Amino acid sequence: MKAFVYRGPGKKALEEHAKPEITAPTDAIVKIIKTTICGTDLHILKGDVPTCQPGRILGHEGVGIVDKVGPAVTAFKPGDRVLISCVSACGKCVYCRKQMYSHCTTGGWILGNTIDGTQAEFVRTPYADTSLYPIPEGADEEALVMLSDILPTGFECGVLNGKVQPGSVTAIVGSGPVGLAALLTAQFFSPAEIIMIDLDDNRLEMAKRFGATATVNSADGKAVETVMKMTGNRGVDTAIEAVGIPATFELCEKIVAPGGTIANIGVHGQQVALHLECLWDRNISITTRLVDTATIPMLFKTVASRKIDPRRLITHRFKLDNILDAYDAFGNAAKTKALKVIIEA
Amino acid sequence: MKAFVYRGPGKKALEEHAKPEITAPTDAIVKIIKTTICGTDLHILKGDVPTCQPGRILGHEGVGIVDKVGPAVTAFKPGDRVLISCVSACGKCVYCRKQMYSHCTTGGWILGNTIDGTQAEFVRTPYADTSLYPIPEGADEEALVMLSDILPTGFECGVLNGKVQPGSVTAIVGSGPVGLAALLTAQFFSPAEIIMIDLDDNRLEMAKRFGATATVNSADGKAVETVMKMTGNRGVDTAIEAVGIPATFELCEKIVAPGGTIANIGVHGQQVALHLECLWDRNISITTRLVDTATIPMLFKTVASRKIDPRRLITHRFKLDNILDAYDAFGNAAKTKALKVIIEA
Amino acid sequence: MKAFVYRGPGKKALEEHAKPEITAPTDAIVKIIKTTICGTDLHILKGDVPTCQPGRILGHEGVGIVDKVGPAVTAFKPGDRVLISCVSACGKCVYCRKQMYSHCTTGGWILGNTIDGTQAEFVRTPYADTSLYPIPEGADEEALVMLSDILPTGFECGVLNGKVQPGSVTAIVGSGPVGLAALLTAQFFSPAEIIMIDLDDNRLEMAKRFGATATVNSADGKAVETVMKMTGNRGVDTAIEAVGIPATFELCEKIVAPGGTIANIGVHGQQVALHLECLWDRNISITTRLVDTATIPMLFKTVASRKIDPRRLITHRFKLDNILDAYDAFGNAAKTKALKVIIEA
Amino acid sequence: MKAFVYRGPGKKALEEHAKPEITAPTDAIVKIIKTTICGTDLHILKGDVPTCQPGRILGHEGVGIVDKVGPAVTAFKPGDRVLISCVSACGKCVYCRKQMYSHCTTGGWILGNTIDGTQAEFVRTPYADTSLYPIPEGADEEALVMLSDILPTGFECGVLNGKVQPGSVTAIVGSGPVGLAALLTAQFFSPAEIIMIDLDDNRLEMAKRFGATATVNSADGKAVETVMKMTGNRGVDTAIEAVGIPATFELCEKIVAPGGTIANIGVHGQQVALHLECLWDRNISITTRLVDTATIPMLFKTVASRKIDPRRLITHRFKLDNILDAYDAFGNAAKTKALKVIIEA
Repeated sequence: MKAFVYRGPGKKALEEHAKPEITAPTDAIVKIIKTTICGTDLHILKGDVPTCQPGRILGHEGVGIVDKVGPAVTAFKPGDRVLISCVSACGKCVYCRKQMYSHCTTGGWILGNTIDGTQAEFVRTPYADTSLYPIPEGADEEALVMLSDILPTGFECGVLNGKVQPGSVTAIVGSGPVGLAALLTAQFFSPAEIIMIDLDDNRLEMAKRFGATATVNSADGKAVETVMKMTGNRGVDTAIEAVGIPATFELCEKIVAPGGTIANIGVHGQQVALHLECLWDRNISITTRLVDTATIPMLFKTVASRKIDPRRLITHRFKLDNILDAYDAFGNAAKTKALKVIIEA
Repeated sequence: MKAFVYRGPGKKALEEHAKPEITAPTDAIVKIIKTTICGTDLHILKGDVPTCQPGRILGHEGVGIVDKVGPAVTAFKPGDRVLISCVSACGKCVYCRKQMYSHCTTGGWILGNTIDGTQAEFVRTPYADTSLYPIPEGADEEALVMLSDILPTGFECGVLNGKVQPGSVTAIVGSGPVGLAALLTAQFFSPAEIIMIDLDDNRLEMAKRFGATATVNSADGKAVETVMKMTGNRGVDTAIEAVGIPATFELCEKIVAPGGTIANIGVHGQQVALHLECLWDRNISITTRLVDTATIPMLFKTVASRKIDPRRLITHRFKLDNILDAYDAFGNAAKTKALKVIIEA
Repeated sequence: MKAFVYRGPGKKALEEHAKPEITAPTDAIVKIIKTTICGTDLHILKGDVPTCQPGRILGHEGVGIVDKVGPAVTAFKPGDRVLISCVSACGKCVYCRKQMYSHCTTGGWILGNTIDGTQAEFVRTPYADTSLYPIPEGADEEALVMLSDILPTGFECGVLNGKVQPGSVTAIVGSGPVGLAALLTAQFFSPAEIIMIDLDDNRLEMAKRFGATATVNSADGKAVETVMKMTGNRGVDTAIEAVGIPATFELCEKIVAPGGTIANIGVHGQQVALHLECLWDRNISITTRLVDTATIPMLFKTVASRKIDPRRLITHRFKLDNILDAYDAFGNAAKTKALKVIIEA
Repeated sequence: MKAFVYRGPGKKALEEHAKPEITAPTDAIVKIIKTTICGTDLHILKGDVPTCQPGRILGHEGVGIVDKVGPAVTAFKPGDRVLISCVSACGKCVYCRKQMYSHCTTGGWILGNTIDGTQAEFVRTPYADTSLYPIPEGADEEALVMLSDILPTGFECGVLNGKVQPGSVTAIVGSGPVGLAALLTAQFFSPAEIIMIDLDDNRLEMAKRFGATATVNSADGKAVETVMKMTGNRGVDTAIEAVGIPATFELCEKIVAPGGTIANIGVHGQQVALHLECLWDRNISITTRLVDTATIPMLFKTVASRKIDPRRLITHRFKLDNILDAYDAFGNAAKTKALKVIIEA
């Protein structure tokens, strides 16, 4: 089969690869219909993710058709159409019991990381019963690819952890795909205001179309003053960090209101300065989270009932044969205005 | 009347002072029976609290007898015995409405800070109806002095924010009076383990008597390894920071388990390093809080029903005339082993 | 001044009445701009509310202009435009402290019940600082009349108590004004389905326009089967009772899913059968609540940010001089299709 | 093997029975060490539980040693010492995902009900990985038998659902084994008062030794007045129903304070009168629950850390050969003062 393989920092290839086999009774083999590329895949290609070694097939998102199942799989059978969670969950360990699947003691984010992933014609998915989700008849499968990772990430790490509430004020720092996923799902809770902050006017324009009530281009270094003025000098109830660098996290520290929450989504590569000399008495919370994808079933329902349209995140489409072009488009988002790219296997 | 007055950095005096007068219809004048000294008072004396200017009567804790009330006070009358909250709450603003009294827009921690305090024969207490609490007949008034600040601080900022639960594992970093208040109140929730961490063996010995299930002297620089070993390499569900310096906060970052909480109580004077490069995917929460004293009524009940004995925090007793000695004893706790000192007016 | 007065069961009159005076330092006198009629007013007129005695001016909703304030009122001054909460809250008692204003030990629902109400040119409002809410410049005052009682009632007693969530299934039994208020505010949380149940096709038609995803006319006695079929035999996550009779409450008992909630809004005049022989092992919750109006400030923000348009509940408008006509229209809703009627003073 | 078998209403026998076999890959066969009898077993013997048919081996509690495991079992191997949950959980269905194991779509309470149970030398336990719990080295196995059902029942259905809090007032109606289990576990949360209500002075005496702060014998028909007097006419924050008849549930309705909770544990055979004409405006919650045993791991930790001693519930011990005597003792608790009886296999 064809597969997209990481070949060491800066190196990647679309290669011929052996089809995966069932190796544990709880495995399934899934024929990929559609997959996509995540910002994390770009990090891997740069060599920033040491758990992922050369030779690995990348990809942790996608929809497909069950091809084979191991003898202990009871929820799925060959022919079933499924959504693949980016997180594999054994369903039994102390973390899975409390739906903290991200920290499953034998699973978690392993697909396209420590085991081969979804950017291929077939993938082996461990713990199929608790890591795949049935796609209802007639559902828009392309839209559902957004439920493997990006929508639950924005929703769980940003919106739920950030306690977005009706009438509250939310700021989202970072208007890339993940920030926009938080923007879309924040609207489930009807906040009064969603202020989107970024350096790129194009992305902010997109954010307005996605439901932001205000946008702030922070290039002028005055984002804090602007947000404080917008909020009557009170600050925001929820500040969602969706970039992953010190400057954006510290911006969140400065705009969060007393009693508010900073919900971190960003993947950080270095420490940040936590200004406890200002924050110790501000009654705030700071949260971090690797997506658990525990809300996938709930998100299915919001898609089915048209509370949200995940297709709005999809800007480009490619065939698996042209996945290198897909990486080019996704990797040059500033130029191509790519958000999420669909790859058809 | 006699009053203890801050006279600028390093200077203090027991002075004769005019008795306070009602200045707003919601004020009460309270004759102090017993008061105490807080670590914050020592900070003021060093000049570290710029909001508190020379000439100020210090003190924000105490029990007393209502002497006079303003015309709008309805819950109290002269002769009533009352506990004074360290936080003044108007009861009307957006923060008071949600019991975040610490951020009352016209109150908060003002006693012994921006207005004269309780280390005197009389004190004016603003917003009496919502800042004083009636002392039931027959209650132990000395014990109740601990409810003005230190017990709600340990409980609200440490135990409640830290989500201590039956069967969970809590670590408290700092075995001074506030850390011990957290230790006492953590036991309301029956955690399986409370690990107390400090540099001073005497304080750790005290912690054991107060209910710690294990103690760790961190002087050897191996506290992280020790705690990880104690917890089967999992870390603690709740890490309570009760010191207020970068080293102790960073210790909490290193011992918190996935899904756990770091509850900051410490008053920090500088930024700390937040290691998001390690924590971004650990599903943790970090909380900060200035005590709201919203739990004073609840704490009254736990004292009355003997679930807790706050007298255990009291080590020394002085007359107001000897308050300078009281400050000496409290300020040299390493030598005197003072926890809380009672000053009788 | 003119005032609408309850004169004993079945008797009512628009009368000349003395203008109210300040009687407590926390009172305000408010000149009514607009008020409305509540279903409870009809109950009073029938003689069903024994706390309300003949001679009482009715009405507990409205917006107005502050005319006078008592000496202890600090949040308002004459000339301020205000929304009047249907619930008077002292702000100090144990219930007010936890925002359970409905059970204020000296307040609660007293306006137009045990003290004179708002269907008059002027009203005395006790505890003005904590029972009135400032109307922002430029707000639509007619819309805000809906925030005195009906919207917080639907939202607090139905939606919040019922734990409506994104993607969940809600049924609302009763498509009258209160049920529709629940319907409007349930949408703050983006449930996947809202099934509206009533006996009147006109009201169900209205419900569809207000956002119901399905409607069930229960006249055929098959509402239970219909709802179970709609939900794949699972039942609903939230069942909101908005009628107040045994039949509708028992319907909720039959359609609630395991793990679900029955949120009662209805004013019940008699006991209902609780089928614990079926429900004891179903892991459900049942809640009751008299509206606290604690969410008025939040609702203000959702109106200002156009997440909800309360004007949709207003069907008729009258002058105070014609309030008897207003009662006729409101009392014959089946014929007049009245939801809420505005009375201009 | 020997097994205790239900032979139709009023009929029971200790019989020779075939040893169970693995029938699904997720099964385990467990050699019983110790088991016990539940009140539900008595109901079955009377013919009150139609799901349980004659020929069934009873029993849904116990500790044992794993004898065999199916090929899909990964968490246990022969020789492991295990606690058996009374509830079988597939770990995969929508209910198991949210730890509502009681409503597992293919499990739930089936042991000793629709499949053979634990009052035998061996038992087949379905879904072993998610329905058995490893017993730590050195643990007191007899004490742990109480964690199969009765302690989680008291804790989950009564204490957790009832939101027992530090300083709060709890009443428990019914001082039998389940009520006492609620009493023991309520103390995890340090309520100020626990009022135990029963008709039997012996049981109330026992309750005092188990930690009740007050007891009320309701035989005089004045329990409501007594409790209201005890609580300053306010009522209780939490009322736990642990009997299962209309009179005791209605007692809870009458003593619950505004804002309080009625947590039902009792197995009810008929409807009860819910006095919504009194309760509709009291802001209360009523909860029902079949035990999920989701707290077994937490309860393990509280036992290990000596926060609770479940042995206090054990009054009698028998060999499996004498299980008919055990049923006699347990069935005549008024005379024998039996709480829980241990049966050694």
